[in-house]
Amino acid sequence: MSASHTLAIDAMGGDHAPQSVVAGLALAAERHPNMRYVLVGDEARLTPLLARHRRAAEKCTLAHAQTVVGPDMKVAQALRLRESSLRRAIDLVAEGQAAGAVSAGNTGAIMAIAKLVLKTVPGIDRPAIAAIGPSARGDIVMLDLGANLECDARNLVEFAIMGDAFARAVLGLTSPTLGLLNVGSEEQKGVESLRQAAELLRASFLAPQFTGFVEGHDIAAGTTDIVVSDGFSGNVALKTGEGALRLMADLLRQVFQTDLASRIGYLLARPGLERLREWLDPRRYNGAVLLGLNGVVVKSHGGTDEEGFAAAVSVAADMIDHRFDRLIRAGLEKRGHAVSASPRSAVAG
Amino acid sequence: MSASHTLAIDAMGGDHAPQSVVAGLALAAERHPNMRYVLVGDEARLTPLLARHRRAAEKCTLAHAQTVVGPDMKVAQALRLRESSLRRAIDLVAEGQAAGAVSAGNTGAIMAIAKLVLKTVPGIDRPAIAAIGPSARGDIVMLDLGANLECDARNLVEFAIMGDAFARAVLGLTSPTLGLLNVGSEEQKGVESLRQAAELLRASFLAPQFTGFVEGHDIAAGTTDIVVSDGFSGNVALKTGEGALRLMADLLRQVFQTDLASRIGYLLARPGLERLREWLDPRRYNGAVLLGLNGVVVKSHGGTDEEGFAAAVSVAADMIDHRFDRLIRAGLEKRGHAVSASPRSAVAG
Repeated sequence: MSASHTLAIDAMGGDHAPQSVVAGLALAAERHPNMRYVLVGDEARLTPLLARHRRAAEKCTLAHAQTVVGPDMKVAQALRLRESSLRRAIDLVAEGQAAGAVSAGNTGAIMAIAKLVLKTVPGIDRPAIAAIGPSARGDIVMLDLGANLECDARNLVEFAIMGDAFARAVLGLTSPTLGLLNVGSEEQKGVESLRQAAELLRASFLAPQFTGFVEGHDIAAGTTDIVVSDGFSGNVALKTGEGALRLMADLLRQVFQTDLASRIGYLLARPGLERLREWLDPRRYNGAVLLGLNGVVVKSHGGTDEEGFAAAVSVAADMIDHRFDRLIRAGLEKRGHAVSASPRSAVAG
Repeated sequence: MSASHTLAIDAMGGDHAPQSVVAGLALAAERHPNMRYVLVGDEARLTPLLARHRRAAEKCTLAHAQTVVGPDMKVAQALRLRESSLRRAIDLVAEGQAAGAVSAGNTGAIMAIAKLVLKTVPGIDRPAIAAIGPSARGDIVMLDLGANLECDARNLVEFAIMGDAFARAVLGLTSPTLGLLNVGSEEQKGVESLRQAAELLRASFLAPQFTGFVEGHDIAAGTTDIVVSDGFSGNVALKTGEGALRLMADLLRQVFQTDLASRIGYLLARPGLERLREWLDPRRYNGAVLLGLNGVVVKSHGGTDEEGFAAAVSVAADMIDHRFDRLIRAGLEKRGHAVSASPRSAVAG
């Protein structure tokens, strides 16, 4: 089993674990035949579940973990739980037995344990959370989505470097365009850290990809492939956009149930409406990635089903397949001087 | 002509001025028969335009202004243009000849001139921009939408007081619920200023209306009637939500043009789809309000048509009709001690 193509899966995290995790893993295993998996959790429960998925079982080993980090468990308590399925999965990455870990568990615990155990990549000050979302011009990458509520210019530049590597690895783009989220597109707009970050980016190797400031409406428009922001506004933007799409979907459902004519109208337009629904399906975009650590860490939505969990595993598999680790290191090398200018990254290195 | 029910209208601001302004004013005049208007701009151009709308003309006087603040004019330059239609309209409010002003012109200039000429209400540190938007549970109020990119706890509390008065005046709510926009709903979430603001609100007269922190998806869900935020994240949320709704509307349009069956499907479901479109029509929500000044100031979108401009005039008329000025003063009085604790508001008073 090649550790470089192995994913550690926390089988016990999430609302429907371990059933949806094992079923999702089985789906993902079909899509990524070159990957192997270590399923971490309660062996007695996992053995019969895995037995239902013969083909996936061939790619899987089980690793027993006695405890589970609960969904409402405080981070400090989760950190003390060293035999939890989450902790063991991330430990496997740190020990070099897996290249990444996927969990649908407690977000705060995943972030804290991953940061503690895996440490940041030399040259990265703070890890960021990234995700993929739909836009009028295809899928886009957004980061940070909440790991860092307040950011300085340097953090934003590092997010841009990580977002670039992520878009290359997962969206397969060769030169993704990049925008900084602001309240206006003019150069003088926004807060100081944003203006500084824009200046740094214009002077960096990312300059040809950097289009300047983008605004909230540019996210759904897909104006740039990557939208970089501080974690507060990124989190607000992601959830507001999701909420607006959900509102529209709910209202449409009501419209098509108004009367018989509307119901027939729905049936006639159904193929297109189904495609639209599938395209906007939140499960397709499941998988928030903690970028900037020594290893791939993907957090699945806790309430998702097997399709959603499979999508999260796919993101991790794509990052590993397309050597996200090398891409990010290449970006940091191109940045050059700034790496050595950072005392914290020197320590981390 | 009662100055307390008079609106000064900048006839020359906006992409389609003065035609769309005069036509929009005519629409609004029918909806608010108790209001009077002073139309400020180039008399030679306005006289024939107004002549087309006999009923509105009866409610209107013209006030000549020689110059116009251009859409791209720098704020400093706009401030020097003391005979502009925008400046004259706001001067009329300061002089007590009108209770409010409406303009579709340059946002930066409107804000700067309004703040300079009208000054803040005693007890308000910084004015905020508010607007009304759609949600699953009816219209909601969002503020700040960009006047203050960085805010402290006190600013946020003042936004809550102003948002409360605005929701009472314009949405007609007697006890609007209130949420603070954050990255999570738990008490310990977010940045310090938000946690402090939450604490202040829980100890204030707004406590019965304050539901705590809300997240991005709560905006479209209509979890609270008022969403208070700093101007940066409010601006990002507003534009991201609008962008997501627009994406969905564009995709739907494509779906219904796929083939003959889809076209017929559209026709069958059309009444409901049209109602949905009208309900989400951005023109219906046109009119961003600068709250916290001594006078009502409404900024219409520059690119809107007469329907949109009429909506902006309606917001101003509703604020005047329902005595927004008294509502905000009542709120500030209930806050009590905090007013006198503020050196800046003492100066403003």
